Amino acid sequence: MTSAHSAYEELCTLFSRLARFDHLSAIGGWDMQTMMPPDGSKARSEALAELSVLKHQILTAQKTATLLEQAQQESLNGIESANLLEMRRQYDNAVLLPESLIEAKSLAGARCEHAWRAQRPANDWDGFSENLSEVVKLTREEAQIRAQAAGTRRYDALLNLYEPGMRSSDLDRIFGDLKTWLPDLLQKVVAKQEKEPCLPPQGPFDLEKQRKLGLSVMKLLGFNFDGGRVDVSVHPFCGGVPQDVRITTRYNENEFLTALLGIVHETGHARYEQNLPREWLGQPVALARSTAIHESQSLLFEMQLARSSDFMKILRPLVIAQFGEQPALEESNFIRLNQRVRPGLIRVDADEVSYPAHVILRYEIEQALVEGDIEVEDIPALWNEKMHSYLGLDSVGNYRNGCMQDIHWTDGAFGYFPTYTLGAMYAAQLFQQVRQAIPNLSDDIAAGDLSALFHWLQQNIWQHGSRYSTETLIANATGEALNPRYFRQHLETRYL
Amino acid sequence: MTSAHSAYEELCTLFSRLARFDHLSAIGGWDMQTMMPPDGSKARSEALAELSVLKHQILTAQKTATLLEQAQQESLNGIESANLLEMRRQYDNAVLLPESLIEAKSLAGARCEHAWRAQRPANDWDGFSENLSEVVKLTREEAQIRAQAAGTRRYDALLNLYEPGMRSSDLDRIFGDLKTWLPDLLQKVVAKQEKEPCLPPQGPFDLEKQRKLGLSVMKLLGFNFDGGRVDVSVHPFCGGVPQDVRITTRYNENEFLTALLGIVHETGHARYEQNLPREWLGQPVALARSTAIHESQSLLFEMQLARSSDFMKILRPLVIAQFGEQPALEESNFIRLNQRVRPGLIRVDADEVSYPAHVILRYEIEQALVEGDIEVEDIPALWNEKMHSYLGLDSVGNYRNGCMQDIHWTDGAFGYFPTYTLGAMYAAQLFQQVRQAIPNLSDDIAAGDLSALFHWLQQNIWQHGSRYSTETLIANATGEALNPRYFRQHLETRYL
Ligand SMILES: [Zn+2]
Ligand SMILES: [Zn+2]
Repeated sequence: MTSAHSAYEELCTLFSRLARFDHLSAIGGWDMQTMMPPDGSKARSEALAELSVLKHQILTAQKTATLLEQAQQESLNGIESANLLEMRRQYDNAVLLPESLIEAKSLAGARCEHAWRAQRPANDWDGFSENLSEVVKLTREEAQIRAQAAGTRRYDALLNLYEPGMRSSDLDRIFGDLKTWLPDLLQKVVAKQEKEPCLPPQGPFDLEKQRKLGLSVMKLLGFNFDGGRVDVSVHPFCGGVPQDVRITTRYNENEFLTALLGIVHETGHARYEQNLPREWLGQPVALARSTAIHESQSLLFEMQLARSSDFMKILRPLVIAQFGEQPALEESNFIRLNQRVRPGLIRVDADEVSYPAHVILRYEIEQALVEGDIEVEDIPALWNEKMHSYLGLDSVGNYRNGCMQDIHWTDGAFGYFPTYTLGAMYAAQLFQQVRQAIPNLSDDIAAGDLSALFHWLQQNIWQHGSRYSTETLIANATGEALNPRYFRQHLETRYL
Repeated sequence: MTSAHSAYEELCTLFSRLARFDHLSAIGGWDMQTMMPPDGSKARSEALAELSVLKHQILTAQKTATLLEQAQQESLNGIESANLLEMRRQYDNAVLLPESLIEAKSLAGARCEHAWRAQRPANDWDGFSENLSEVVKLTREEAQIRAQAAGTRRYDALLNLYEPGMRSSDLDRIFGDLKTWLPDLLQKVVAKQEKEPCLPPQGPFDLEKQRKLGLSVMKLLGFNFDGGRVDVSVHPFCGGVPQDVRITTRYNENEFLTALLGIVHETGHARYEQNLPREWLGQPVALARSTAIHESQSLLFEMQLARSSDFMKILRPLVIAQFGEQPALEESNFIRLNQRVRPGLIRVDADEVSYPAHVILRYEIEQALVEGDIEVEDIPALWNEKMHSYLGLDSVGNYRNGCMQDIHWTDGAFGYFPTYTLGAMYAAQLFQQVRQAIPNLSDDIAAGDLSALFHWLQQNIWQHGSRYSTETLIANATGEALNPRYFRQHLETRYL
């Protein structure tokens, strides 16, 4: 740190204070999803909203602006400059919106989500679209303000909240390319797999044994249990704080693979959090780089590592230790189970070949929505058309498992979806680089020695937090900018 | 409420905001004791301390003082006046201490407690006493400031944080009287019980069955599971917020009664919280009256109700439903088990006859500590001397089960211990009144119908929150001020 009482140092104190409030938001939010009984809901929402307002007030105070200006003139080293840049980014993102808009959007999102919980099972598009229209209207206002300040398109301004530096022109190019080969690849893989027998495991699978299996896999993947835990929630997530990472899963007695691979996925998120730069925790520079980079770590664990035939050699014995042998768990069948490709209507259940189609579909619709090219009432027809064209599936009239399936739009999180596929692409590119850096990687994995892999991730991704832009981080780690070629290569190698 | 924008109304908004922050403190604190992995400790302590500082700043702001002055001139009804009085009390208690002292004490307490978790099993008095000295030093500073403002003795100023209106001169009288007859009564009861055979239940007692037994007893006692939960912690407590009450227990496979009666105790606390005046939640007047009144509810549930031979008639079948029949669970033996008096070193394991001796011992030591008559290094010798004199037990060298057994002093909660015995006395007095109000009480209890008892508590205690002073609350409920005679009567009737 620089000399005492510098503006930069005052900012560090201020952001450290904000991080402490973030800590309580994170634990209060985690508890809400995992532990809280129903009657606690209203009071908890109010308490968390009160804390959000407070954090926003502190961050956007005139004093913060003044300190940011002053610190700009101070002599800072590399990481301090990066920290200041991230402080500035948080401030700019927060200060742009009038408090009335923030409150209106938060209320509209909460109302839309609350109603959606009943409307989705009832397939009630008319009811839902009315609430969603209000969320979209407020989102457009937000996008307009942000776009004007940043000098970008409206959609790009939202996208940048999740993946700073990314532009829709990049996505149009990347996703445009994907669309030229993905539907064809998908058809080929499905046709190939149709000829291969694949036995489903026969349950029931005792929930306590599933839990133990999950713990053993988390241990294998290096999760630090002194600094985190795993619990159950309806929607799996990775929450908490870097010193205390809370992942969740949900178990189903009839089928254990979804919960298990879900745990692997969240453990990828968790290891990133647990290995962010310790000495900088509490400062913006110690935060994970972006939503897409976060997802690259979970997908690297889930898709690149855990679903590989190398990893199956160590995963299978752990499964058998809990549930015993059965034909479906024989090696070749077990691999096929974990590499099964089957296009379906539901994004969260999708395999890694179909997944980008779900994302592109949503990207195209949400971009047009935010830019004002379409209205909420246009969504179902577009959804059906794209679902048919990209995945060959019919979603007509099936709103519940169509355009009403996700929580993102109900909450106003437009611009988030692309980060899933960006994450998958970063993961493929990083893993390809890991393969080159660790010549014996396959043998290491099959022998259960993941230390070199984790060391590489620690050195190249985890320890940097937000020190570098996504572009620089990826270029430093792999020697080139984001290159979707590795993702295509990965899919073709594994599935064709 | 009074007309819009009155000072009183502004205060309501302000205290409602504080209650939302209290909510997050409560859940963050509960999580720390029940869920948090060890590496989360430092960050959590810092986050909770930061929130404490914030709450203190809001509460003690000049604006609060001004509003309190203005509201004093406004026309308020009875409950509003009581609310204003409680606001004023919170303000006065908070404004006295400088922020630096509050933060220092909170950090010292957290550090002392954290180290104590390892030092206690290691019997490490030297390590512990060093941390405790810092806590005592800061507690004396606090007591000095509070005493000066209140015009009381130092110790009384701390006592009043837990039991407003209580004085050490009252306690000296009440406890002085207790000391004249309690050791003698204790000896007589022990001598009487030595002649009665009492078989211990034979374990092991499956933890899952203990958990189910606990849940069935909580249900019987009217715990609202939609607004609360039960978990495991090292030191059982009742936390959370009125809308979401979190009680804890700890299980031991060899012995189930301690955990079970512990659950009954915390359920007493919980029902008070769950039945505080709903329409006033968030306002100071809706808070529980005092620590001693809180304890009176838990002890009424545990000691007056659950350990009575009437209640055994409904408790015993629930126990047998989980663990089956065995000689120790036969009715007369089961009653003897639950009314067993056996002086021991550990306060939390003490029966209700020995318990006051543990409290008086601590009261005398902590009073002398706070007043500066003794130092931390004097504690062990005094402890041993009093343990021998009041309970006839030897604690020399046994710090772990002696002066290091409690969490209170590690956290700086001096002045708290007397409220346990005050609570026992209020409980006896209240229950005596309940017996008069409900002539068929014994039969009702034995038949499992507790509705009239709960209705009486709801009408006379729970629904009032902090509407009345402890003195008025007790006088309204029982027709007289605190009268220790009922406690003595209760012990003599049950045990002689
Ligand atoms: Zn993820
Ligand atoms: Zn208690």
